[in-house]
Amino acid sequence: MNDPKQQVELYDTTLRDGVQREGLSFSLEDKIKIARKLDGLGVRYIEGGFPGSNPRDQEFFAWAQRASWQHATIVAFGASRYKDHRAEEDPNLRALVAAGTEVVAIVCKNSALHVREVLGVDLPANLEIIGDSVAFLRRQGKRVFYDAEHFFDGWKLDRDYARACLRTAFGAGADCLVLCDTNGGTLTSEVAEIVRAVYDELGSAVQIGIHTHNDAELAVANTLAAVQNGATHVQGTINGYGERCGNANLCAVIPNLQLKLGIPCVSEEQLRSLTEVSRFVSEVANLHPDPHMAYVGASAFAHKAGYHADAMRKHTLSYQHIAPELVGNQARILVSELSGKGAIATKVEQLGLRLGSPAQARQVAERVKQLESRGYQFEGAEASFELMVRRLDPDYAPPFELVDFFVLAETREGREMLSEAMVKIRVGHHVLHTAGEGNGPVNALDNALRKALHSTYPHVDEIRLTDYKVRVIDEGSGTAASVRVLIDSSDGVDTWTTVGSSTNIIEASWTALADSFEYGLLRAARRAQQPATPQHLG
Amino acid sequence: MNDPKQQVELYDTTLRDGVQREGLSFSLEDKIKIARKLDGLGVRYIEGGFPGSNPRDQEFFAWAQRASWQHATIVAFGASRYKDHRAEEDPNLRALVAAGTEVVAIVCKNSALHVREVLGVDLPANLEIIGDSVAFLRRQGKRVFYDAEHFFDGWKLDRDYARACLRTAFGAGADCLVLCDTNGGTLTSEVAEIVRAVYDELGSAVQIGIHTHNDAELAVANTLAAVQNGATHVQGTINGYGERCGNANLCAVIPNLQLKLGIPCVSEEQLRSLTEVSRFVSEVANLHPDPHMAYVGASAFAHKAGYHADAMRKHTLSYQHIAPELVGNQARILVSELSGKGAIATKVEQLGLRLGSPAQARQVAERVKQLESRGYQFEGAEASFELMVRRLDPDYAPPFELVDFFVLAETREGREMLSEAMVKIRVGHHVLHTAGEGNGPVNALDNALRKALHSTYPHVDEIRLTDYKVRVIDEGSGTAASVRVLIDSSDGVDTWTTVGSSTNIIEASWTALADSFEYGLLRAARRAQQPATPQHLG
Repeated sequence: MNDPKQQVELYDTTLRDGVQREGLSFSLEDKIKIARKLDGLGVRYIEGGFPGSNPRDQEFFAWAQRASWQHATIVAFGASRYKDHRAEEDPNLRALVAAGTEVVAIVCKNSALHVREVLGVDLPANLEIIGDSVAFLRRQGKRVFYDAEHFFDGWKLDRDYARACLRTAFGAGADCLVLCDTNGGTLTSEVAEIVRAVYDELGSAVQIGIHTHNDAELAVANTLAAVQNGATHVQGTINGYGERCGNANLCAVIPNLQLKLGIPCVSEEQLRSLTEVSRFVSEVANLHPDPHMAYVGASAFAHKAGYHADAMRKHTLSYQHIAPELVGNQARILVSELSGKGAIATKVEQLGLRLGSPAQARQVAERVKQLESRGYQFEGAEASFELMVRRLDPDYAPPFELVDFFVLAETREGREMLSEAMVKIRVGHHVLHTAGEGNGPVNALDNALRKALHSTYPHVDEIRLTDYKVRVIDEGSGTAASVRVLIDSSDGVDTWTTVGSSTNIIEASWTALADSFEYGLLRAARRAQQPATPQHLG
Repeated sequence: MNDPKQQVELYDTTLRDGVQREGLSFSLEDKIKIARKLDGLGVRYIEGGFPGSNPRDQEFFAWAQRASWQHATIVAFGASRYKDHRAEEDPNLRALVAAGTEVVAIVCKNSALHVREVLGVDLPANLEIIGDSVAFLRRQGKRVFYDAEHFFDGWKLDRDYARACLRTAFGAGADCLVLCDTNGGTLTSEVAEIVRAVYDELGSAVQIGIHTHNDAELAVANTLAAVQNGATHVQGTINGYGERCGNANLCAVIPNLQLKLGIPCVSEEQLRSLTEVSRFVSEVANLHPDPHMAYVGASAFAHKAGYHADAMRKHTLSYQHIAPELVGNQARILVSELSGKGAIATKVEQLGLRLGSPAQARQVAERVKQLESRGYQFEGAEASFELMVRRLDPDYAPPFELVDFFVLAETREGREMLSEAMVKIRVGHHVLHTAGEGNGPVNALDNALRKALHSTYPHVDEIRLTDYKVRVIDEGSGTAASVRVLIDSSDGVDTWTTVGSSTNIIEASWTALADSFEYGLLRAARRAQQPATPQHLG
């Protein structure tokens, strides 16, 4: 084992290897936003892209040269020279130099199989390619990180050749030898043994790095094993995005290194931003954050079983491996049929509400059960849960009540699709009846409802719906399936989530939409310390 | 390391610990379906539930006693006796016995912290609870698996006490000591060391088991490390379902053990069913299967980069860690903006289509790019991709063409929500104009379109829409966001997926729906070796 006080350098490749994930792509603007965020997180190196492969990546590097960075150094990635080019004339290497970064990463072949079968050259010729490419980049004044593609598979096939590749790169001036488990199938015990052997041979002369993939669900463990055996440069991506099963997930690697192995990577404050960075990147990527992700997932510290939830009340750390605040996450007690009245009481308290009597707690539990059987799920929609509890109070006066609505979507030959909605609501003693249009039926309802509410509650202008999610519940029923709609909203001060469920997507959307406005108006009224019902109508 | 030819016993807890996952619950029927599937997979033990906790689990055990099993033994799970009960009178232990299983698992405390702070007894009293509970169950003729809760945390806190707990359980007759990383935060290197120490002390006398959680994204690695250090009983869940970040994922553990460590768990044929089992369980669970899951995910062997896709053509195993067929999965080349014309040509070939010229290949690539910029994603919707390619052929005669449609969703005070649709299509030279209703706008469109097609194509009766998924693309835009709709369909022979994208959910649904019928009719016609255009209208 290494000195536990060693430093580890973080190298993020979300913008290059991460976008190999199925369904993921980033615009130039997305890349800039993410790079800024990674810089704030304290990542040492950000691999910005593959300048030889597409113009978007070239634009990114042009921008990165002008930008200023707090912690990060931007790295351009490329391949070694083509087999029948001279390094000086190779377009890939020239694009790599042209990216203008202080550091470049180049990927070369290290497995005898890939050299012969994929590259189609003999083993010595590949060593020349490695040596030429690294030396050329060094002559251009670059620091060079050598990405040893298929290193572990290559080692298992022909250990001497894999070592010769590393020694060639080192001899040509590479600053770091990054051992890549490109196919992601190497076992943790093998990674430990092979990294140790490389470290014993070259570790006193050159830095060793690790780059793993998750094809055997071992990427994080393999990264830790490499660090425990001499690697001090760690590559990965935010949320583990990457081709096939993904890359090593930095959102798990960083806290494992820092909180479990005592190896500092980022400051404590930066570590506390980890959950936010994870969610930010998934938002920019247009991917739903995985709630079950280690450390940063919304469910990572969520307790459902009555049994566990009860113990949690007794001793906070009894069912948590770390304090969630260390990574900016938080513990939650879930509202669900399994969790019983005890957990519901805790939840109601957490929301700052009070249940008058045990009978009322039973009533809430009954209602949750009833709505869950109709497809509701309050675990992610606490605003709707709160409204449901409030509505059980006979004294509750909602800011508005729904009467009717109507929505239409139509396409006629030669015209764009049209959506219109009519909405009728009651505010105090007034009935408001209005209409709106939109680029879809839910957007039309949203616009009509805003219009109806606006005269009484100008605050609706502040309420923005920031996310709209649809989840098909009984998927086996095709287009007759029940759907659950979740809407995230914000008014610039608070954010909240509401839910609706129905076989009719319009009805489910409408319920979540109306809840969102009702909750937003209640919050604003509470902030202003005044009742939510309109005084001037009273 | 153990003898690599050792056997490992698989113990599945999807039906007990798996349902602790946020948002997951199983009906009795669901539990039966999953247990049947696990039996077929060759799992040795199936933990069926917690009979003391709810009536549904008791019903499951009543059914399981009458059912016959090929490979599996059903196990009932429960907690040790309450601190102030005698074992004979403890309701939990009695419920456990009443479940009628040959084997029971009981969970007991092993960490001095939990004994004192959560259970609230002194350390010797907990040893009595362990001894009494195990001995009572043995006297009832049960084989007893001892779940050592918080074993690793307990060991790190007070090693001697954790060992005393194990020795007490062993002394009272436990058949297997299952070491649990209940909070999921233990590092792989620690698991290896602690399991080795337990194995050295007790491994010659009693079987050692392992039960891990994924809170540090290490559950699979920790399971393998335990097996490499003496554990021969392995607990986990299908797809890694479980509380917080989940349990050890058997869909990764099984192939890692069998294909990588050479430790047989199931037959080769059973291993080939793994992908299907994974998807079956996610379907019953009403959860979208994670496409990036190791081994069994739809993207686990999907290649996007032009670079990799090209190498894949040259050498199949060059970018795959195993042959996907071994686990019943398959390799895919993805259609995406990154993959270029080469990959599109391969894809078109895979679909059995032919591109007339390089100009046509360029035309397809252009069209893909154009539609992707409008939110389409063909990676999961190959039927729509095929239709898009066919429509570029001027000789293509579609089975029908859309003219107009119209859909309405309305709620009036006191009435159920109503949805109606009008559809106008052209079949050959005929224009068909009809209407339908449904429990939502898309279902109404589905019904109207079927009605219009039925007279010409009675085969539409066979086409069922088996799944309907909605994905919000630019989530930041609230209810004005673009949505992508995916529809899975089947006609009992073939299954296929279609896609539509629009800011209008109705339009996106309509496009995917119409594609589904068009593709289904084409497939049926191809199977019948006749052109898809209606002969009697020609």
